[in-house]
Amino acid sequence: MEHEEAAARDDAEAPLMYRVERPVYDEAFLRSQLLHRRQRSAPSLRQRLAQQLRCSSEKAKAAALSVLPILTWLPSYPVKDYLFQDVVSGLSTGVVQLPQGLAYAMLAAVPPVYGLYSSFYPVLLYTFFGTSRHISIGTFAVISLMIGGVVVREAPDAMFYVQAANGTNASAVLDVEARDARRVQLAVVLTTLVGIIQFVLGLLRFGFVSIYLTEPLVRGFTTAAAVHVCVSQLKYLLGVKTQRFSGPLAAVYSVQAVFSDITSTNVATLILGLVCIVFLYGVKDLNERFKKKLPVPIPGEIIVVIVSTGVSYGLRLSDLYRVDVVGKIPTGLLPPALPDFSLLPNLVTDSFAIAIVGFSMGISLAKIFALKHGYSVDGNQELIALGLCNFISSFFQTFAITCSMSRSLVQESTGGKTQIAGLLASLVVLLVVVAIGFVFQPLPQTALAAIIMVNLLGMFKQTRDIPALWRTSRVELAIWLVAFTASVLLGLDYGLLVAVTFAILTVIYRTQSPKTAVLGQLPGSGLYCDVDEYEEAAECAGIKIFHSNSSIYFANSDLYVNSLKEKTGVNPAHLQAARKARKKLKESKQKGNHSLSSPLKLRVEDKERGVTHEVLAYNHTEEQRNGQLADRHSESDSEEAVFLEPLCSVRCIVLDWTPVCFVDSVGAKAVKSVIKEYAAVDVEVFIAGCSRPLLSELDTLQFFTGVVTPDTVFPTVHDAVLHCQHRTSRPSDAPTNQTT
Amino acid sequence: MEHEEAAARDDAEAPLMYRVERPVYDEAFLRSQLLHRRQRSAPSLRQRLAQQLRCSSEKAKAAALSVLPILTWLPSYPVKDYLFQDVVSGLSTGVVQLPQGLAYAMLAAVPPVYGLYSSFYPVLLYTFFGTSRHISIGTFAVISLMIGGVVVREAPDAMFYVQAANGTNASAVLDVEARDARRVQLAVVLTTLVGIIQFVLGLLRFGFVSIYLTEPLVRGFTTAAAVHVCVSQLKYLLGVKTQRFSGPLAAVYSVQAVFSDITSTNVATLILGLVCIVFLYGVKDLNERFKKKLPVPIPGEIIVVIVSTGVSYGLRLSDLYRVDVVGKIPTGLLPPALPDFSLLPNLVTDSFAIAIVGFSMGISLAKIFALKHGYSVDGNQELIALGLCNFISSFFQTFAITCSMSRSLVQESTGGKTQIAGLLASLVVLLVVVAIGFVFQPLPQTALAAIIMVNLLGMFKQTRDIPALWRTSRVELAIWLVAFTASVLLGLDYGLLVAVTFAILTVIYRTQSPKTAVLGQLPGSGLYCDVDEYEEAAECAGIKIFHSNSSIYFANSDLYVNSLKEKTGVNPAHLQAARKARKKLKESKQKGNHSLSSPLKLRVEDKERGVTHEVLAYNHTEEQRNGQLADRHSESDSEEAVFLEPLCSVRCIVLDWTPVCFVDSVGAKAVKSVIKEYAAVDVEVFIAGCSRPLLSELDTLQFFTGVVTPDTVFPTVHDAVLHCQHRTSRPSDAPTNQTT
Repeated sequence: MEHEEAAARDDAEAPLMYRVERPVYDEAFLRSQLLHRRQRSAPSLRQRLAQQLRCSSEKAKAAALSVLPILTWLPSYPVKDYLFQDVVSGLSTGVVQLPQGLAYAMLAAVPPVYGLYSSFYPVLLYTFFGTSRHISIGTFAVISLMIGGVVVREAPDAMFYVQAANGTNASAVLDVEARDARRVQLAVVLTTLVGIIQFVLGLLRFGFVSIYLTEPLVRGFTTAAAVHVCVSQLKYLLGVKTQRFSGPLAAVYSVQAVFSDITSTNVATLILGLVCIVFLYGVKDLNERFKKKLPVPIPGEIIVVIVSTGVSYGLRLSDLYRVDVVGKIPTGLLPPALPDFSLLPNLVTDSFAIAIVGFSMGISLAKIFALKHGYSVDGNQELIALGLCNFISSFFQTFAITCSMSRSLVQESTGGKTQIAGLLASLVVLLVVVAIGFVFQPLPQTALAAIIMVNLLGMFKQTRDIPALWRTSRVELAIWLVAFTASVLLGLDYGLLVAVTFAILTVIYRTQSPKTAVLGQLPGSGLYCDVDEYEEAAECAGIKIFHSNSSIYFANSDLYVNSLKEKTGVNPAHLQAARKARKKLKESKQKGNHSLSSPLKLRVEDKERGVTHEVLAYNHTEEQRNGQLADRHSESDSEEAVFLEPLCSVRCIVLDWTPVCFVDSVGAKAVKSVIKEYAAVDVEVFIAGCSRPLLSELDTLQFFTGVVTPDTVFPTVHDAVLHCQHRTSRPSDAPTNQTT
Repeated sequence: MEHEEAAARDDAEAPLMYRVERPVYDEAFLRSQLLHRRQRSAPSLRQRLAQQLRCSSEKAKAAALSVLPILTWLPSYPVKDYLFQDVVSGLSTGVVQLPQGLAYAMLAAVPPVYGLYSSFYPVLLYTFFGTSRHISIGTFAVISLMIGGVVVREAPDAMFYVQAANGTNASAVLDVEARDARRVQLAVVLTTLVGIIQFVLGLLRFGFVSIYLTEPLVRGFTTAAAVHVCVSQLKYLLGVKTQRFSGPLAAVYSVQAVFSDITSTNVATLILGLVCIVFLYGVKDLNERFKKKLPVPIPGEIIVVIVSTGVSYGLRLSDLYRVDVVGKIPTGLLPPALPDFSLLPNLVTDSFAIAIVGFSMGISLAKIFALKHGYSVDGNQELIALGLCNFISSFFQTFAITCSMSRSLVQESTGGKTQIAGLLASLVVLLVVVAIGFVFQPLPQTALAAIIMVNLLGMFKQTRDIPALWRTSRVELAIWLVAFTASVLLGLDYGLLVAVTFAILTVIYRTQSPKTAVLGQLPGSGLYCDVDEYEEAAECAGIKIFHSNSSIYFANSDLYVNSLKEKTGVNPAHLQAARKARKKLKESKQKGNHSLSSPLKLRVEDKERGVTHEVLAYNHTEEQRNGQLADRHSESDSEEAVFLEPLCSVRCIVLDWTPVCFVDSVGAKAVKSVIKEYAAVDVEVFIAGCSRPLLSELDTLQFFTGVVTPDTVFPTVHDAVLHCQHRTSRPSDAPTNQTT
């Protein structure tokens, strides 16, 4: 409709007119006459303090509600409308939560039961603290893998080889129990630290840290994580026993280790794993295809777990075919215990990475659902919620969690309405842990590897970003590729650091390679655009309008000044040299001393002619001056004429500062000094289009002193151009200026 | 004159008028009708290649001139005018060059004679390659100190203790000769690498790297360097023997070591040093005070060197009072030798730091002089020149050099006109090296320490920046302080890295904390400014103009969208909720089912009223709507009225994008999704003031698809506002929109 209307307007209706008629304003006039700062009765510091510190029941209530969002929605929970859907959704999510918990514990390099703990406590807690109604909190592949990397680095297999006790055989034996106990300790204390970091960041309102994780970066990073996860699962799928690597190039070493040991592949394991993968992929496909017809998605993962457990138990796969199984799953929960804080020092940087990645995964998903269902999530409260979930749960031996995309989609698509669904999912897990956990002991590890791998397919699909980004934005493609490559090769922690640094540098790069242009007027419109680009743009005689689309600060002020000189073709140094030479020539003539420094004279004259030529080249489109120029050209051969001729046909330069957001002291100095240089050769520089915040910044920088005064500043380019045209058209002024 | 004129214009002349009358343009119209891209006969790739590769005598000449700038100025060297001044200046500079060479070699932790070599070869070479006529190339305190730090780290004293040969005494003795030989090797190979890096950066036209070293950063950094230098000279001044530290906290350890050994102060050394300091300071002061009367500055440093050498020799200070002296100075030059490249690997990062710091010191000084004397220096050629000086000289056993501020000032103030002055200065040093170097063997080290320390006074004066920056720019003060603190505590290399990182982050910070405002029109002017700030700015009924002075990209797109919703007071989520509630209410009414979901209804109604109130609060300045609003207020209590009333009194939002320099895909998506959200609640969003480069960027990002079309984009805010007013004023349109 919008479009039709526009078309209609163009064809039939009298066009809507843009009419402005007012005096030309400059900044001096605006400041002294036109604009008055609003007299605001700004509250005094004391009043504001009083306001801030005043206690009231409302404030207390608001604070309580913000920390415990459950209080806002539970009292008005529409049982009739929501409860049934929440129950269905909760049970479905719980059924997914269970196998994922077992599987991701493998990624985190801890025994599977800790994955179940991690799928219960934090999920329960999130019900109280979370603001998102649809995300499913719990174990997540990327985070689990990051934990696994740290844990393996700090407690490698090599640390736990003990001399075999029987004495006859000198070979060392891996003490798996000691290793796992140590790894659990590490994962738990890491989780405590992650919780503390997230909680503190939330309190400090640092929810914005996740903005540095721009979308291409996150997608490149998670694709790399998927690569890592797949690589780490390869050995379980094949049933090959290799050590686990961490640190830079870990992925390469892992693949190498697996392939060098490929002959020891356990065929039973491999077949079982492949069957699981094919089945899961088929179920995923079915669920996708019959999304609308199925009331709840087919729970492929739990089917795989149950069936493969049954098969493993029935056929005694572990004993007869040496298929690795999950092994001991203790029944019941562990009593709370204090994490071993002595392990902390080595984990600080890792926990920052995990805390921030965890949070940004959570918040991005929460925002998507919030937008879809029309409510809002509070980034800082989410950070606090995640922090509390991780911190409190870690005393019950869990590892760090965040929300999982695949599970959240299950929870939302099965009709989950509120956090009640999450609560029920956690209760499903609890039931398994306290009652029938031991049932899963014969579950083959290869089935879990299959679950993990199929869950990652979505992430691998992100490689489709590459051609799309190639078409839209090369810079963002570079971010994607850097994030991916660095994360694959250097590991997720360093990779993330490199990617974030790179992303930040691209912003700097953008401000440093601004597009510059000389603008010309679209006749009669007051609009200006690039003369090189558009036919209609006409330069005004004697006026150059310089536009550069960036702020002016230390890293680009030199470039700004250089491209100003280059684009306008007016170089004060050349003009100055020409002027000096002219003066000398004049003096030497007056003294009648013609022999003085002839090489110098010649050199400088060459330069001056160069300048005049430059200017000529730039002005050749201006018809009205053509005759004049031709005259001048012939004149410049005569030495006499040189003294009368102005040094340069450009009398005014207008700097279009509409795109300038800020100027720092280095930028201000650079601009000021170039204005002075131009002033010395009788070229006036005007500044147009500053925003008012920029003007106050310039005031603070004491920019308006000396040669730069507020009456050289204009609110629009058109104001400045009109002023210039007015000045240059007064012939009485011009000669007096020149002879000074 | 400028100012008077402006005043005159305001008082007497008829004011210069700004008159524009044209149809309101939107981007669709501009694209289809008004603007035509210039048909440029862009040269084909082949033509351009041919152009590039064509050989001509002119090209060859230009290339030769650019690599060997001496060819441009030497042939036309005005012997009569310049030679005398160059000779005077060259001799004066050489006389300063000499003691500084000896002294800075101490900083570089190599024997003094290498300082003399470094004051000869590179200075000679610069005459051929350099483009600056006034800077004095040679040893420089900061660079020497950085070299010293690296050299001491790689070859610490501890490496060179050998068992005393006499056997009876088991104590280890420091093998000074082996240590110094090793340190010279290290310094030389470091210099080779610095030369290569500078040369390659120059060839790659990377002269811009120095821009990251913004002025406050360099001043903070050099002040920190001065602290390091002073600390390192303390032991020479006191005659205390302590080891030299490097790495983080080196300054602290050094001071600690000196003071813990303060009882072993050599009084003769201390007295001599203090006398030198007082004398040098006095001379410096005199030179400053009688700048204009003195033909050449008093060469205080060479006087100190000569007198203290004489005193030391005459009184046999070294033998009788155990005053440390310079020691063996071999006569003559060393034959060229290949640096020991096996030492390279550990030096790569250091040499980058030294290369870049060296270059930026040089180029900043060169630019100052070039500006003062009206010629231009080529940053990339300077980089190549420095690179060649360092690289070639390093084969003759020199350490890295750049230009020194104090010497350059001597060279310029004594009337130096061209690089000939530098050439002569190098010849002075050569003369000393080959003829009378041995004379300086009794020179006490404390005298050199005094020379170094007095030369640093200028750098300490930079602390006066702090109050000045506090007044003008807090951000830059922060950069200064971070550069200073980090460089003092972490050492110059890490300090520089931290400072550069911090400086870059401040730029990100600035784009992330944009100033946002709602704009209002200055009546009749077509100009818009902040309504909260200026009395004259009046909002237009039903239109909100949102301004945010930054580009929109991943790190601030969320903030942009949030502050848009907050500042305009129009939150689509609330409106959406209100709309849904209204729909439900309507349905339930139509069904006559009044009992349905009353808590939900109440909740949502509350929200809607909140929205209306918010809007009311923002609009209370618009007199022409007051009556209408009052009506609406009373109506909104009646449930019937709710259906007829528009959800929000703001019908249009104009995004002022004049300060937007670039938008990335994340930013574009965010803006597009917020426009969609607004469209869903019947608020139209228009974009105004995009620059044309930004528009083509948006085209590449496929921004103009779906709800965002080019006819919602206007070249100026005023165009957009006129369009909005036109739309909202047509009552026939409005109701049809609302009921959809």
